[in-house]
Amino acid sequence: MPELRYDPIRSRWVIISTERARRAHEYIRPREKPKVDVRSCPFCYGNEAKTPPEVFVIAPEGRQPNTSGWEVRVVPNKYPALRIEGELKREGLGIFDLVNGIGAHEVIIESPQHDVSLADLPVHHIQKVLIAYRERIRDLRKDVRFRYILVFRNHGGEAGASLSHPHSQLIATPIIPPVVVGELNTAREHYIRKERCIFCDLLKQELMLGDRIVYEDENYVEWTPFASAFPFETWLFPKKHLHDFALLNDDELLELARVLKDMLLRIKTVLGDPPYNMVLHTAPSPHPRPGREYYWSTLQYDYHWHIELIPRLTRIAGFEWGSGLYINPTPPEEAAKYLREAEVKVEDEA
Amino acid sequence: MPELRYDPIRSRWVIISTERARRAHEYIRPREKPKVDVRSCPFCYGNEAKTPPEVFVIAPEGRQPNTSGWEVRVVPNKYPALRIEGELKREGLGIFDLVNGIGAHEVIIESPQHDVSLADLPVHHIQKVLIAYRERIRDLRKDVRFRYILVFRNHGGEAGASLSHPHSQLIATPIIPPVVVGELNTAREHYIRKERCIFCDLLKQELMLGDRIVYEDENYVEWTPFASAFPFETWLFPKKHLHDFALLNDDELLELARVLKDMLLRIKTVLGDPPYNMVLHTAPSPHPRPGREYYWSTLQYDYHWHIELIPRLTRIAGFEWGSGLYINPTPPEEAAKYLREAEVKVEDEA
Repeated sequence: MPELRYDPIRSRWVIISTERARRAHEYIRPREKPKVDVRSCPFCYGNEAKTPPEVFVIAPEGRQPNTSGWEVRVVPNKYPALRIEGELKREGLGIFDLVNGIGAHEVIIESPQHDVSLADLPVHHIQKVLIAYRERIRDLRKDVRFRYILVFRNHGGEAGASLSHPHSQLIATPIIPPVVVGELNTAREHYIRKERCIFCDLLKQELMLGDRIVYEDENYVEWTPFASAFPFETWLFPKKHLHDFALLNDDELLELARVLKDMLLRIKTVLGDPPYNMVLHTAPSPHPRPGREYYWSTLQYDYHWHIELIPRLTRIAGFEWGSGLYINPTPPEEAAKYLREAEVKVEDEA
Repeated sequence: MPELRYDPIRSRWVIISTERARRAHEYIRPREKPKVDVRSCPFCYGNEAKTPPEVFVIAPEGRQPNTSGWEVRVVPNKYPALRIEGELKREGLGIFDLVNGIGAHEVIIESPQHDVSLADLPVHHIQKVLIAYRERIRDLRKDVRFRYILVFRNHGGEAGASLSHPHSQLIATPIIPPVVVGELNTAREHYIRKERCIFCDLLKQELMLGDRIVYEDENYVEWTPFASAFPFETWLFPKKHLHDFALLNDDELLELARVLKDMLLRIKTVLGDPPYNMVLHTAPSPHPRPGREYYWSTLQYDYHWHIELIPRLTRIAGFEWGSGLYINPTPPEEAAKYLREAEVKVEDEA
């Protein structure tokens, strides 16, 4: 029997469709690969001049900026969705509202290697990618025009990656994005009523039930959410309540790198390196706004940062767009079983 | 300069990205076609036994049920997302909520011709398709378990159509879908404050400004919304305030068929028969719920039925999923200009 399940975090219903149930191997198929000549890849060594000048880099001392030799390199996107220059203008136009497109759009080039995926990088290198995320978030938050910085990763052409060289992106926006606003409001409402974090409550119930847990260590949990909108959707949460990813220190990022690698390897192993989207959800930038200091300054402490991963295995069609309801043909309990039982090896190093 | 625009109906922001501006011809490319042998197509004449028995048909008198000779035929989906049998159960499970998957999932086979698109059918035949929509909505509303009936159409493999034989679908759900709830709440709030329909207000402003209007006749308007989330997204609205599509009579459906054909032909001409999703948004089923009679019974009169069409030209990637913000590389004013200037011929017949 199919089920409709409600996601208490995202405030939406999902249809778990058992009539069309699909197992892991049914999703494995050849994937289109972005075709790029390595010599012309703007993210490879020697082609640093093909990108705008770097804004952050992890590299050995003594290296000249915008030359090879780096380990992780962050550059502005050459075709940014939003532009960094200018003063923020908010205006009304009759029934409409608009804001000029001020923001930042950057690319985090995760490795000099062209043909490697984040899942295959060593843990200590993944840590450096996470350090780049943190440093860019910290830096961009100094700009009071930006309300939010969203870090995300598209893997594979079908997931929207136009270049195959491993990279993440971030977009800083002059508004808090609707999905995050929804999560923040839900968390706030829960906190006001109960003085507890809704994410912590959710985590506690999932750990108690256990059937959707994929992996757990002392500090982190990977699980397939109760109301997964997509097959094999997986969330990675810190067990400890913390609203802001950018507060993690290097040691904590090394632990996270280990669990993130574990999650990516499980998805890769079970689903045959599927296309996926990964998103980092953290608290909004902590700039007080006039008259809203209290609300604004406490809001973020209700939040619980986390990473969401969506393998792109099903098509979004008219029903989904028109209804906001998603049909998921693989119950998350089954997805969790496949992922839990996958044999993956995350090397132990320091 | 890019812009962020707010959609007052769907309560969400959209990024109109001029840096990546794309013109109509840039979207035209070869499309994958679903490969189906016509002899085995379950929607073709002679294969009526390959579908579940029909629940509605437009056919000459004297035809035997489930044989050929029909013009429009409606059958239950062989692989339904929701199941029709059973009693509705709503339950809580700790922090979670679930409803068993009761609903209906039907296919409206629009024509016996396998290789035709809705845009190419004669106006009087499109009218029959719309009559099938209306009759199925009216019939399914008698079932008090169903809160909403969503009619939609996926055209082309990339838009989620698994069979190329022209068809629409409907899904009846035991909850009102989130997107519709959002629109209903916004309309209600506007009505309470102003005693006016928000859709009518929007329509009035768009008609006054004119730069997003694609086509208009005495009763209907096609336009590209101010905060279009997708390039060439087009809405079709009746000018007259009416909450419910299912109240239209046959003559009104004939007029609608003419404008719908006009819209589909413009999209097909300008974008080279792109994949698209089309959705009919109408008021929810008018069953009062205990204690909510007033709210429930007036809610629907704030609404304004309409059709939304989304050509599937861009990829939805990590940023869109993680933020709920959509990046649209073609300003709706430009899209409207292309569509307005397209030469299409909708025959005049009665």
